[in-house]
Amino acid sequence: MATTAPQSTSEQLAVDTIRTLAMDAVQHAGNGHPGMPMGMAPVGYLLFSEVMKHNPKDPHWADRDRFVLSAGHGSMLLYACLHLSGYPDMTLEEIRHFRTWGSRTPGHPEVHHTAGVEVTTGPLGQGVANAVGLALAERFLREKFGEEVQSHHTYGICSDGDLMEGVSAEAASLAGHLGLGNLIFFYDHNHISIDGRTSLAFDTEDVNKRFDAYGWHTQDVDDANDLDALRAAVKAAQEETGRPSLIRVRSTIGFPSPNKGGTPGAHGAALGEDEVRATKEVLGWDPDQHFVVPEGVYEQFSAVERGAAAQAEWEERFQAWRAADSERAQVWDLAWAGKPLPGLDAALPSFDPAQKSSLATRAASHTTIQAIAPFLPTQVGGSADLNESVKTGIEADGPYSREQATRNVYWGIREHAMGAAVNGMALHGGIVKPLGATFLQFADYMRPAIRLSALMNIGSLWVYSHDSIALGEDGPTHQPVEHIAALRAIPNLTVIRPSDANETAEAWRVAVELVEGPTVLILSRQNLPVLDRSKYGPAKGLDKGAYVLAEAEGAAATIVGTGSEVSVALAAAELLAEDGVTARVVAMPSWELFEAQDQAYRDSVLPPGQPKVSVEAGIHMGWERWVDASVSVDRFGASAAGEVMLTEYGITAEAVAAKVKTLL
Amino acid sequence: MATTAPQSTSEQLAVDTIRTLAMDAVQHAGNGHPGMPMGMAPVGYLLFSEVMKHNPKDPHWADRDRFVLSAGHGSMLLYACLHLSGYPDMTLEEIRHFRTWGSRTPGHPEVHHTAGVEVTTGPLGQGVANAVGLALAERFLREKFGEEVQSHHTYGICSDGDLMEGVSAEAASLAGHLGLGNLIFFYDHNHISIDGRTSLAFDTEDVNKRFDAYGWHTQDVDDANDLDALRAAVKAAQEETGRPSLIRVRSTIGFPSPNKGGTPGAHGAALGEDEVRATKEVLGWDPDQHFVVPEGVYEQFSAVERGAAAQAEWEERFQAWRAADSERAQVWDLAWAGKPLPGLDAALPSFDPAQKSSLATRAASHTTIQAIAPFLPTQVGGSADLNESVKTGIEADGPYSREQATRNVYWGIREHAMGAAVNGMALHGGIVKPLGATFLQFADYMRPAIRLSALMNIGSLWVYSHDSIALGEDGPTHQPVEHIAALRAIPNLTVIRPSDANETAEAWRVAVELVEGPTVLILSRQNLPVLDRSKYGPAKGLDKGAYVLAEAEGAAATIVGTGSEVSVALAAAELLAEDGVTARVVAMPSWELFEAQDQAYRDSVLPPGQPKVSVEAGIHMGWERWVDASVSVDRFGASAAGEVMLTEYGITAEAVAAKVKTLL
Repeated sequence: MATTAPQSTSEQLAVDTIRTLAMDAVQHAGNGHPGMPMGMAPVGYLLFSEVMKHNPKDPHWADRDRFVLSAGHGSMLLYACLHLSGYPDMTLEEIRHFRTWGSRTPGHPEVHHTAGVEVTTGPLGQGVANAVGLALAERFLREKFGEEVQSHHTYGICSDGDLMEGVSAEAASLAGHLGLGNLIFFYDHNHISIDGRTSLAFDTEDVNKRFDAYGWHTQDVDDANDLDALRAAVKAAQEETGRPSLIRVRSTIGFPSPNKGGTPGAHGAALGEDEVRATKEVLGWDPDQHFVVPEGVYEQFSAVERGAAAQAEWEERFQAWRAADSERAQVWDLAWAGKPLPGLDAALPSFDPAQKSSLATRAASHTTIQAIAPFLPTQVGGSADLNESVKTGIEADGPYSREQATRNVYWGIREHAMGAAVNGMALHGGIVKPLGATFLQFADYMRPAIRLSALMNIGSLWVYSHDSIALGEDGPTHQPVEHIAALRAIPNLTVIRPSDANETAEAWRVAVELVEGPTVLILSRQNLPVLDRSKYGPAKGLDKGAYVLAEAEGAAATIVGTGSEVSVALAAAELLAEDGVTARVVAMPSWELFEAQDQAYRDSVLPPGQPKVSVEAGIHMGWERWVDASVSVDRFGASAAGEVMLTEYGITAEAVAAKVKTLL
Repeated sequence: MATTAPQSTSEQLAVDTIRTLAMDAVQHAGNGHPGMPMGMAPVGYLLFSEVMKHNPKDPHWADRDRFVLSAGHGSMLLYACLHLSGYPDMTLEEIRHFRTWGSRTPGHPEVHHTAGVEVTTGPLGQGVANAVGLALAERFLREKFGEEVQSHHTYGICSDGDLMEGVSAEAASLAGHLGLGNLIFFYDHNHISIDGRTSLAFDTEDVNKRFDAYGWHTQDVDDANDLDALRAAVKAAQEETGRPSLIRVRSTIGFPSPNKGGTPGAHGAALGEDEVRATKEVLGWDPDQHFVVPEGVYEQFSAVERGAAAQAEWEERFQAWRAADSERAQVWDLAWAGKPLPGLDAALPSFDPAQKSSLATRAASHTTIQAIAPFLPTQVGGSADLNESVKTGIEADGPYSREQATRNVYWGIREHAMGAAVNGMALHGGIVKPLGATFLQFADYMRPAIRLSALMNIGSLWVYSHDSIALGEDGPTHQPVEHIAALRAIPNLTVIRPSDANETAEAWRVAVELVEGPTVLILSRQNLPVLDRSKYGPAKGLDKGAYVLAEAEGAAATIVGTGSEVSVALAAAELLAEDGVTARVVAMPSWELFEAQDQAYRDSVLPPGQPKVSVEAGIHMGWERWVDASVSVDRFGASAAGEVMLTEYGITAEAVAAKVKTLL
């Protein structure tokens, strides 16, 4: 067990205060993870008291250093550091209420819930990739606005568990490739995970060598308690501006607990009253006292004064920078407000069926992106090696590379890291609607990141094309079937599947201007008819989630379609008309937007008591909420041409018309 | 561009036949991926004609070498090799119908659909992890049954894209840790992905160094066309029995296409008629002929003769081995039939509420696992570093390690690789119901593998505990809300959420004995009442998916619960009874099992026309199919004690009773 003591009494006290607060909070709650905060207390102390540029009185200062506790189960490390740094919301009272209803100290850190928490973490590996996104954002904004207003680091702490997860591997590879020198991670190398020693599954791996292979700058600190060694490592990492840094820190989980330190027993459970006492005795603390902050510890952190001074210095530069160029200042303000420049609405393309009768919605999306890109000067994003397919690239920009930061990130075939890094960019601020794109099928690869975007309620934008069996020959491994439903299942996620080119433009407007949280755009591979809006309801109806596309007096039924199946619904209505059956057609691009409308509107679109049939080339799960019967795809696809697939799988006007008749 | 020619005319012809078949098939289909098969044709040739032990006339031979084309988009490489090797189903006619409805040659290889295809691949990275599972299975069976009957390699080809995906990184790390010397991968290092050169996002990474860090044996072959260099590398890899091998092969995508070779243009689209002609001219082939297999090429592969001889030799050993120990032979037979040993039913535990009134279903599952483990001598699996939590460990066995192959794999915190490797074990054969386990929340991390288990219809078993907000203090990052629905959304996946200890034992029986495809068991963290089966319907009812737990004459309503909410439903019925309202209670552990019952049974459980209310601590999406109203959790959770969460979120008997009353 590592035993080097911190170098001075006051530092020792400050570090040990983190340890005792963590022990006490977990013991008081009866559950939680004391071991990581105890082992890594010196790193937390160093970051918050000395290394990081942050102002506890203004946790939203644009140029603060960002900190990501990827190993979110060690939340007490962060809460203790926030408290000792002087973040006003993080009182000792909150720490006493660790992991209880209504506290600011939930089991895992939650952004927007607790001031000073930059990212919601806990699901392992995500934080590493979030941090890569934060670093991508900083570098973009630094190049765009200048070093005088944007120049900071992203620091993080990750665990063995974080580094076993594939998402962190993907993100680390990209960060190394792009040479993100503004990113510094401490790896808490404690040889322990929940199931025991990492010798069970991991510790033969040479993590630093792996990160070398990615192009990172790597260092070792042999004892987490050696503050000078940590200081030297941080300094070397900061001086390395062309590569991200990993500092592998040999720590002892639960240090200095005499009986549980260095064992899995310190990982995920309270130490127990006796062991807390014993540990306090080792530290020379009074074992009868809890939640104690000894005299001088707040002063030792002195974060408020340092932070205020740093921000004041920056403010002076910032104000001069603003005054020098008011137009640039407006771009900055809108970017940090998360808004596009004025004029985006008017710039939206309109698609005329007389000029082009059919267009894939992914192609309409591409046209829209080019049209609105000038109004989104800080929208950074890209696809997971599918630019030619999903068509999200901004043609006016080149690729984000080591040499230049642009709006087009080439994520590589790394969907999960893309998702988490996009979340990091959204969390950074200044980046408006950062974007990740791939085939709808591969939304599964990044699902944990999508979920976290919804949980954090941030402006991540997910663009998925190739949205059904109609993608054709690539077959069932690539054909989404259950994916639209699975995305709708995530709370707080707005899913939009536009039915034609004009709805696609409108979907972009809604995603960028209307929806605050994360949005999914679901697009077709195949061409779809551009609907004649002089004949049908306006595409603007999309912003209500569903709208009447084709009204019909005395209608006997309503057919509801989404995306590519809206034109199938229209064709079905025509077939029915030939048989003397009158049917209305509703386009329903978004359940969530529709659910936000009042009952009167919803009843006007989907009249109660009237037979209703949905058609969507995916499973019918959940459609029972809206309709009486569904034409759907409730099994896996196959490899064949798209039109063949639709016919063989019964996504046809004939099948819809027949289904309607069964209800009459 | 690499240009070394193969060493002899007949070899050259054989290799070039793969190239021309790939070109012709893609050109004829009008779409597909010609470049990879053309570039890696020498590796395909070498594996199928010389290196691999396989018998085209018996693609199910237990001791064949396994081959995984992780880069599944290069399917024509595999189809061409299967054809030239003499797999009877893979005719030239099938190759002519590449990527069309009903052919054996879908866009991506599909196991069970095409003889000789071991794994369904296409979603990148999966195949690498599937191969790790195949290797884990082989090693387990080799140690269990002996080298004379089980001793083979798993070979694979992976691409840049495969190696960017996190799932392959996780799997490679584990394979290195466990020293799987029976695994040999060729890395098609062609510097090209869909979006262009891998310099955009990847090629600064030193992949071999990374694999060194994992503990792999790594080699370079500088030219894919240098068959002797490939041979030497394979030999060295085979001789390395303590480490998995990666052979990085510098190839030229689309070789030797004069205008598209080495460019993204050869990756994912037909070369075009002119370029196919030009390429054939480079090869010295007649550009007017298509789908040609020159004289001598079948003979050059000579796979049928080699395979028959190899299998005959093995059969002799195998028969002697069987005769020597008939009991062992029976274990072998049942294992390869995917069945438990006789007696499992009788060994199932029964839980008596008089002895223990409440028990978490994860704990009941643990008891059940120990009871049935003797009957599942080849069930290999484990959890992603959550043995203490999900409780899937087999106590009679130690950990699967470098030193010994056991039934307890410690996957590390690598859910995605776990999922794909479990699929690999299921595909290998001989492993009965291989198992992957974690918290339900982290099913999201491995969703692509779950989906593939369903698409392949294999016996993977997924065990997920901590199944609702009732897990408590870990908070919303760990509390599943939409996950049960999202799993039900996947076609062909049987999801079972037992309501008490006895249903849990029954769920295990159903998963092991009844369901052929993949099964999900969803378990509680918290204790649940052990239902008094003398009072309620028998737990055996679980095998019908839903059953009447508490019948009530003249009932006014039915309450349907799953898992932990079944006891809430029972309590609600009691509350209603106090108010003079009679309600029946139905336990509905599995929608899919229930849907398989006939209408009469379904109507007897959920009577049409009678008000029905569901209660489940998750989103209510899809419940409209079964009931009129739902008590559900349609938002993210929070960090607080489990009981507090249930109360605050309205998962209570009172809320259910009140909901029932709204329908009366």
